[in-house]
Amino acid sequence: MNTDNPIPELSGGLRRSLAGIAGDGGLLTDPADCWPYGYDNSRRHALPQAVMFATDESQVVALVALCRDAGIPLTARGRGTGTTGATVPDRGGIVLSFERMDSILRILPNDRLAIVQPGVLNAQLQQAVGDLGFFWPPDPTSAATCTIGGNLAYNSAGPRAVKYGTARESTLGLRVVTGRGESLRTGVMTTKGVVGYDLTRLVIGSEGTLALITEATLKLTPLPETKRTLRATYGDIHSAAAAVSAIMAQPIIPCALEFMDGSAIEMVRHYAEFDLPDGAGAVLMIELDGSAACIEESVSAIGEVARNPGLLELRRAESKEEIAALWKTRKALSPTLRHIAPKKINEDVVVPVSRMGEFIEGLERLSRTTGIRIVNFGHAGNGNIHVNLLIDPDDPDEVARAAECLDAVFALVLSLDGTLSGEHGVGIEKRDFVGQELDPAALALMTEIKRCFDPAGILNVGKGFPQG
Amino acid sequence: MNTDNPIPELSGGLRRSLAGIAGDGGLLTDPADCWPYGYDNSRRHALPQAVMFATDESQVVALVALCRDAGIPLTARGRGTGTTGATVPDRGGIVLSFERMDSILRILPNDRLAIVQPGVLNAQLQQAVGDLGFFWPPDPTSAATCTIGGNLAYNSAGPRAVKYGTARESTLGLRVVTGRGESLRTGVMTTKGVVGYDLTRLVIGSEGTLALITEATLKLTPLPETKRTLRATYGDIHSAAAAVSAIMAQPIIPCALEFMDGSAIEMVRHYAEFDLPDGAGAVLMIELDGSAACIEESVSAIGEVARNPGLLELRRAESKEEIAALWKTRKALSPTLRHIAPKKINEDVVVPVSRMGEFIEGLERLSRTTGIRIVNFGHAGNGNIHVNLLIDPDDPDEVARAAECLDAVFALVLSLDGTLSGEHGVGIEKRDFVGQELDPAALALMTEIKRCFDPAGILNVGKGFPQG
Repeated sequence: MNTDNPIPELSGGLRRSLAGIAGDGGLLTDPADCWPYGYDNSRRHALPQAVMFATDESQVVALVALCRDAGIPLTARGRGTGTTGATVPDRGGIVLSFERMDSILRILPNDRLAIVQPGVLNAQLQQAVGDLGFFWPPDPTSAATCTIGGNLAYNSAGPRAVKYGTARESTLGLRVVTGRGESLRTGVMTTKGVVGYDLTRLVIGSEGTLALITEATLKLTPLPETKRTLRATYGDIHSAAAAVSAIMAQPIIPCALEFMDGSAIEMVRHYAEFDLPDGAGAVLMIELDGSAACIEESVSAIGEVARNPGLLELRRAESKEEIAALWKTRKALSPTLRHIAPKKINEDVVVPVSRMGEFIEGLERLSRTTGIRIVNFGHAGNGNIHVNLLIDPDDPDEVARAAECLDAVFALVLSLDGTLSGEHGVGIEKRDFVGQELDPAALALMTEIKRCFDPAGILNVGKGFPQG
Repeated sequence: MNTDNPIPELSGGLRRSLAGIAGDGGLLTDPADCWPYGYDNSRRHALPQAVMFATDESQVVALVALCRDAGIPLTARGRGTGTTGATVPDRGGIVLSFERMDSILRILPNDRLAIVQPGVLNAQLQQAVGDLGFFWPPDPTSAATCTIGGNLAYNSAGPRAVKYGTARESTLGLRVVTGRGESLRTGVMTTKGVVGYDLTRLVIGSEGTLALITEATLKLTPLPETKRTLRATYGDIHSAAAAVSAIMAQPIIPCALEFMDGSAIEMVRHYAEFDLPDGAGAVLMIELDGSAACIEESVSAIGEVARNPGLLELRRAESKEEIAALWKTRKALSPTLRHIAPKKINEDVVVPVSRMGEFIEGLERLSRTTGIRIVNFGHAGNGNIHVNLLIDPDDPDEVARAAECLDAVFALVLSLDGTLSGEHGVGIEKRDFVGQELDPAALALMTEIKRCFDPAGILNVGKGFPQG
């Protein structure tokens, strides 16, 4: 982190060029003004030399050309809700904020698509298309404040991904500006298209290292008529994991299939209102959507497959109040976690659903051997588990043990055919672990692809994977 | 096409090296033996200098290294069912047939995935996973004979894509050998993963120009309990197109939504058993799948939205015989087409569903002005239309007018925000039209990406887009 090193000021000439591109009120250079554009939700911070707000693509093209010619690092930013430091300008330079490119350009209900600028908030889009009977599947927890551009840069997901996929499955095409300063379209306006290489999905999830997204054509999904919520409590994680596999192997896929493990339940027991049966070792929250005429049949079918010898209780909710009551234990988890361990390490790994029981057991073992308390919850239907290490960051011994523990967690994930990140991305946080998952030949190819898009090496250099 | 030019023989040294890699019975060099590996379903042919059959990845690595060092063109091939010439070795060199790498390595029902070699037939996979209650969504017409490797190379689809997506949405990861001769894994074994760039989808649809797929981890979908078939006949294409938009804007998505236009109906009327009502100007075949308890409700809901002032008749089928009867007119189309115009030009374009009426009207206008008979059918839910120009290839005047007409068809597609290929790919056939759809900057990037994967320029050079 560069916060302790004063960043050299921009030369007068560069500053004038930037101001010319940005126009009135479009440029910040005072460090106090730039400060809030130096952090994200990773607790990292680095001060940029300037912050520019673009209002149209031509400014993005001009800014990239300027940075390319002057060799200035350029970091694109939505609303800074990422958790891995991907938008923290740790090499200084310019932050390009897309918050003013926030127009929904077109919604075409008959073609099930919306064309938006990158600064549109996820919730703003959902509201606009919801009025027409649609939604856009990615639903990160930060939906109220995060931008579509950010969702695409990270390939964001959320609970609904289990049924509806991630950003990659719900985007038809993009308009981008590469690190060369060239504007180009990727993809199509249709739900099929095989002309040329798939640059759309290459840019999605690339964390602003290849190109800056200036427009996106999003595939919309029709809103289901209705929804039901079930809560299944099991005596142990193996029974819960077996239920997840059974649910995912039949044709009625829930629109959310979330879980909490025993340590998460144990923690909430002492800090919040608690209505789980005795002996609860794992909880699944199951949401089903569909037509009003069929939802009951779906509830019965899922109830059947969720039932196994380890099931302690299966409850269902219909009214808003009942749904809120069922979610209470799950919703108590995050505040309780923040209360107990304000500086917890929140990881985001994935294992095949059939290996979840094995994984949680391994974590319990690691917790015992390292003395680090570990609490797990997440998107069970995808095997996407948020592993929380509860540590006191002021205890250097605990910090050292946590680092060891984290190494072991990642090794365990990879030994189970898993991946180191399901939806939070890599950014700075996980960059040095990526080599454990990806083949050297794959990393070398990615470095070369990065060079094709950004030969001057200005776009968010050093994020996502170890680069030169 | 190189068929008229004798291809230089391989040197003795190269031939020995090839034989060493291929092992007993793994190499063909006699032109008569090589001949059938020189064509696909595009009516193009070029004789390769040799055909090698790999049985494991190490042979692929060795062959690529040999071709790379000697500068020999290398064309990978499944079963040659493609329609665009992508597997025709028009620059000579070696054809690598994957037909002997045909093992289903693992099926993991609890993780909803299958790991297969590229030479597995689509139908063989469907049979194996069907026995466990799953299917793999891509269902090209050639399913009985085409390979998974080919399906991935082309990003193949078929009728089910309207509900279940294409190969890109149903593949978790690959094992590939790049043109550098390096073997690497892409993607994950899970349904989520955001570590590194998305090389999986970059390779899918790249028509063997970037890397050779030696193994694929496929995402399976649970088989629906039951299916229903509807046939909706409309007075004109606009009413049918409006029904398609209405169907696609509500939450019950059909698992097939196929159409035939008025000229297709007109053609079948005179050559096959015919049971459409008078005045039929367009037909939709609608298939719905789901649980037995809910299928009736889906049929009613779709029946409602399919109904508009242009609807002439809505019929439904349940028994196998009734289903066969409803499909009779649609199924008569291909044989009739072959009978009338054995050398028809079969195009594969896509327009947004809301523009389909406009598109078909434009085609009717083009047919009148050019005197070329045009018959259209296809996957209406995706706006994916197979445009058939019925010509006599021995009439040079008609051939010239057809070429003009085709130019105009492509221009019309692009003016309606469509794409030049939905599922057949580009290969040789459409290579020279790609520049009309893609930005020059996008094409330049693709050329550079090609160079990253294949710096020696040996893998299927010249296919997919104009290359050096």
